[in-house]
Amino acid sequence: MILDIDHVGIAVDDLEGSVERYRRTLGVEPSHRERVEDQGVEEVLFPAGASFIQLLGSLGADTPVGRFLATRGPGVHHVAYRVDDVAASLARLRGEGVRLVDEVPRRGSRDTLIAFVHPKEMGGVLIELVQIAG
Amino acid sequence: MILDIDHVGIAVDDLEGSVERYRRTLGVEPSHRERVEDQGVEEVLFPAGASFIQLLGSLGADTPVGRFLATRGPGVHHVAYRVDDVAASLARLRGEGVRLVDEVPRRGSRDTLIAFVHPKEMGGVLIELVQIAG
Repeated sequence: MILDIDHVGIAVDDLEGSVERYRRTLGVEPSHRERVEDQGVEEVLFPAGASFIQLLGSLGADTPVGRFLATRGPGVHHVAYRVDDVAASLARLRGEGVRLVDEVPRRGSRDTLIAFVHPKEMGGVLIELVQIAG
Repeated sequence: MILDIDHVGIAVDDLEGSVERYRRTLGVEPSHRERVEDQGVEEVLFPAGASFIQLLGSLGADTPVGRFLATRGPGVHHVAYRVDDVAASLARLRGEGVRLVDEVPRRGSRDTLIAFVHPKEMGGVLIELVQIAG
């Protein structure tokens, strides 16, 4: 079901400073930036092979990433797996009795279709499923 | 400098139960299992494109992953980036004043060369650099 790691989502306190730090220390260049209002984040993507490193800045304290930063501090927020069909993946997970955050796919950044799986179900890891726009 | 995400390392309380859960829910099959005594872990790898999902069971409470589980609970332990030359990457990081966990590359699982970067330096994310055996 999993085609690849689509990205690792990393919550950061200071988006611009973190982008600069990743550029300088890891020698990566950002390839995409997007403000995703309904998720309350601004994201910057760095390509890493066929995957991405995703830095996530919060658009406010009362957003999922804002609350994550307040309680856990900066760090890995979620792991996103690329699948060919998010709806089919959700059906499989539902069939295994897995609790979902999103019961149906919704629009993500880069015109993707996405859905989140509840972290309680996957050993404390918030998992996102990502279907690239066909 | 970064060729790909080599793997995402996920600390789990129950390695066998977690392997089974990943197999059933995400439809992935383990491709490698290794006990790494000097890191105090047993790891199971699932391929995801050119990357891996790495489940990490602790070999005891007094190991890095054992302490991580005791203080943070199960979840993402580290993110590993594939590079072509770990020694050169360490030199670059050192040149940028980045504090390292490993000053020189050491042997990892799968006959890789690896080094860890201090999480305080990279926004709370423990980063591993991985050079595939040539």
